[in-house]
Amino acid sequence: MSSSGGPAFALSCPLPLTGSERVLLGHGSGGKMTAELIARYVLPAFGNPYLDRLDDQAVVEIGGQRLAFTTDSFVVRPLFFPGGDIGTLAVNGTVNDLAMAGARPLYLSAGLILEEGLRLDDLGAILESMRAACQRAGVLLVTGDTKVVNKGSGDQCFINTTGIGVVEHSRLLSADQARPGDRVVLSGNIGDHGMAVMSRREGLEFDTVIESDTAPLHGLVASMLEGGSELRCLRDPTRGGLASTLNELALASGVGLEIEETRIAVRPAVHAACELLGLDPLYVANEGKLVAIVGESSAEAVVGRMRRHPLGVDAAVIGVVTEQHPKMVVMRTRIGGTRVVDLHPGEILPRIC
Amino acid sequence: MSSSGGPAFALSCPLPLTGSERVLLGHGSGGKMTAELIARYVLPAFGNPYLDRLDDQAVVEIGGQRLAFTTDSFVVRPLFFPGGDIGTLAVNGTVNDLAMAGARPLYLSAGLILEEGLRLDDLGAILESMRAACQRAGVLLVTGDTKVVNKGSGDQCFINTTGIGVVEHSRLLSADQARPGDRVVLSGNIGDHGMAVMSRREGLEFDTVIESDTAPLHGLVASMLEGGSELRCLRDPTRGGLASTLNELALASGVGLEIEETRIAVRPAVHAACELLGLDPLYVANEGKLVAIVGESSAEAVVGRMRRHPLGVDAAVIGVVTEQHPKMVVMRTRIGGTRVVDLHPGEILPRIC
Repeated sequence: MSSSGGPAFALSCPLPLTGSERVLLGHGSGGKMTAELIARYVLPAFGNPYLDRLDDQAVVEIGGQRLAFTTDSFVVRPLFFPGGDIGTLAVNGTVNDLAMAGARPLYLSAGLILEEGLRLDDLGAILESMRAACQRAGVLLVTGDTKVVNKGSGDQCFINTTGIGVVEHSRLLSADQARPGDRVVLSGNIGDHGMAVMSRREGLEFDTVIESDTAPLHGLVASMLEGGSELRCLRDPTRGGLASTLNELALASGVGLEIEETRIAVRPAVHAACELLGLDPLYVANEGKLVAIVGESSAEAVVGRMRRHPLGVDAAVIGVVTEQHPKMVVMRTRIGGTRVVDLHPGEILPRIC
Repeated sequence: MSSSGGPAFALSCPLPLTGSERVLLGHGSGGKMTAELIARYVLPAFGNPYLDRLDDQAVVEIGGQRLAFTTDSFVVRPLFFPGGDIGTLAVNGTVNDLAMAGARPLYLSAGLILEEGLRLDDLGAILESMRAACQRAGVLLVTGDTKVVNKGSGDQCFINTTGIGVVEHSRLLSADQARPGDRVVLSGNIGDHGMAVMSRREGLEFDTVIESDTAPLHGLVASMLEGGSELRCLRDPTRGGLASTLNELALASGVGLEIEETRIAVRPAVHAACELLGLDPLYVANEGKLVAIVGESSAEAVVGRMRRHPLGVDAAVIGVVTEQHPKMVVMRTRIGGTRVVDLHPGEILPRIC
């Protein structure tokens, strides 16, 4: 299922919906309320072996060829922010969901929902960003659709992108593949995307402009797949942040995760912005980072190869998979204590992607 | 490119945008303004041999297998109407865009954009409709995404569906394949979907309830592909209606089309509703009909096979392809005159699919 914040049709935990008869913003957070919505409404209707995996994409076989297939809608507000715009995100987000299956991204579709009154100059700029992002990622946008809704029935521009990629390895990369002893690898510092958008939205000014980390990750993934490394699972910690992704992995595999706060890098400006807004960077969206679960014997080699790629220079092992406290994520803190890192119950940063 | 009303990234006619600096409702009509928007903003950014065909879907080749790939966003208002709802439409619309390539639909993705405040009961009903439509069409929904936007930034529920189908024939079915002498075939009566939605939206009551014709057409298409018939092109005349579809075909193939008004069936209730609202049924959306361009020698046999399928019992030859008046559609009227059936300049029925 989608990402830009973890699987959006996500998590088969049998939780009751928290008393509401209506959709709330928290249902789109990528956290516990999203999981409840999916578990109660989506999976009962459509459950099948592809969807039930709750990965960021489905891997289907057609004519003997394994294909990855993934979809994401982008509703970020504002449309433009430091480091990118909704068009950049829409291409990279879907490219990355294909990459997380270890697939080579090939083709994208684009579905635009435009609100009456959107400036055509803005539309032109967004399409130019999509063009540039497609070129950088080496994918072709081959089919599309444009709808217009009345003023007040949308919010300038929503974009759905759906992608097809070809899976050229024979591994099963899935959220349920983590095993005790495996290592948790993170490709770089966290929180940049979410704080870039929030800073622009809230009109915050810092000495350093925080830029979104939006980037296509399939090149980095290709380097990780080399040499028969024991990769179990790849995920991009987007909506809901690193904490949500780690919880999804722990739940799906029925294992515990233990991570080290000191190994998780956060830029000073991102840290400062989070403090100001009362946010925990663990829950803040990234758009150019990945988490990998890697067999113990391969972890060092995989991190080494990641560090030689421009998008993985700060890659590090941040934790281990354990038999203890199954389905829970526990963090050893900077001051030597431990805390449970839970799925966020509801709303954190609405409309971040 | 999309349909639910003809290609939405559509028509490479080099027209200037009609003086506006902002997106207008007419840009989503499936008519001339949509064509202008696509020609000026989309094709220059993304132009490639797949997109440039301006068909309802791209046909790509992966590992020696031809695959059809298509996307559509659904923004219909109201969400529920006689004969279906946004969920039914979202599945059948994308299934039909695959069918128009002669493809066997296999897999769908779904991207939901929900507005805060949507009733969860309504969401449940929509998902149940999608489930039933998937089952009827024999497709699997294998991946999805859910986003929530603030109240006032959406309109209850928008749905994107994207589909993959396998092309098991070797024909090139495309809008540029019509040749003088070919026949224009229509699968049944027109205008039902558009008037079902408009009647509900405007609170009109008729003796007969007008129901949407939404239905999956790939079974009908399979029957048309039998026996080596000379099929040139298939299109479903959705947003923008029969008139828009015929104009797109005439433009893409550089031919004239001559159609006979007396051969185009319109139900009495649909005719009455159109009169009341001042609409021409030629421009009203269908969601379970198709137009085929068929070689002269195959036309009779194709129509015969269509009539043996439940969704084609009223199939008929409604016109011919001609060398005269290239890129124009001309209709011989009921009273013996002729009139040009043009692309509608702008807005006809907003948010009909």
